[in-house]
Amino acid sequence: MDHRFAVNVAPKEGILDPQGRAVEGSLGHLGIEGVSAVRVGRRIELTVTADDAAAARAVVERLASELLANPLIESYQVEELGATSSLVGGAA
Amino acid sequence: MDHRFAVNVAPKEGILDPQGRAVEGSLGHLGIEGVSAVRVGRRIELTVTADDAAAARAVVERLASELLANPLIESYQVEELGATSSLVGGAA
Repeated sequence: MDHRFAVNVAPKEGILDPQGRAVEGSLGHLGIEGVSAVRVGRRIELTVTADDAAAARAVVERLASELLANPLIESYQVEELGATSSLVGGAA
Repeated sequence: MDHRFAVNVAPKEGILDPQGRAVEGSLGHLGIEGVSAVRVGRRIELTVTADDAAAARAVVERLASELLANPLIESYQVEELGATSSLVGGAA
């Protein structure tokens, strides 16, 4: 059975986030006010074929900790999605 | 009042995703099987100070479409989080 997951990876608290600072630096040019604490991370979506949801999640946890996130500077969170990508039907 | 949001940005269907292919190419080295359809995107978390949730979401939608995503090749989805980052308490 197929399970679709997302892994959200973000810079840990206290770790420099130059992309987040770049976004904040662009807000003035766009005339956008009231935005703060911008953190830029990655989101990886993937499909796992496994016998059950627990086995599928174990594969994702291993993949996240060994390949997708750098545990020294990043934290991650595993999110189970529906049968299809969470971005289907998203804004174009 | 402060509202915390995440913007999930992903390559559109049909758009080449070299990072996703790189992850798939690494699975064999890790001895991980059953993973497919890997898509690598970005996740931006931010705080918006606004009068109400609707006004805050309007700011995020504008930021996402004008700065965070490239509408030619990427789709995005806005997600409202709690008062703190969704990654607080995530795996280290």
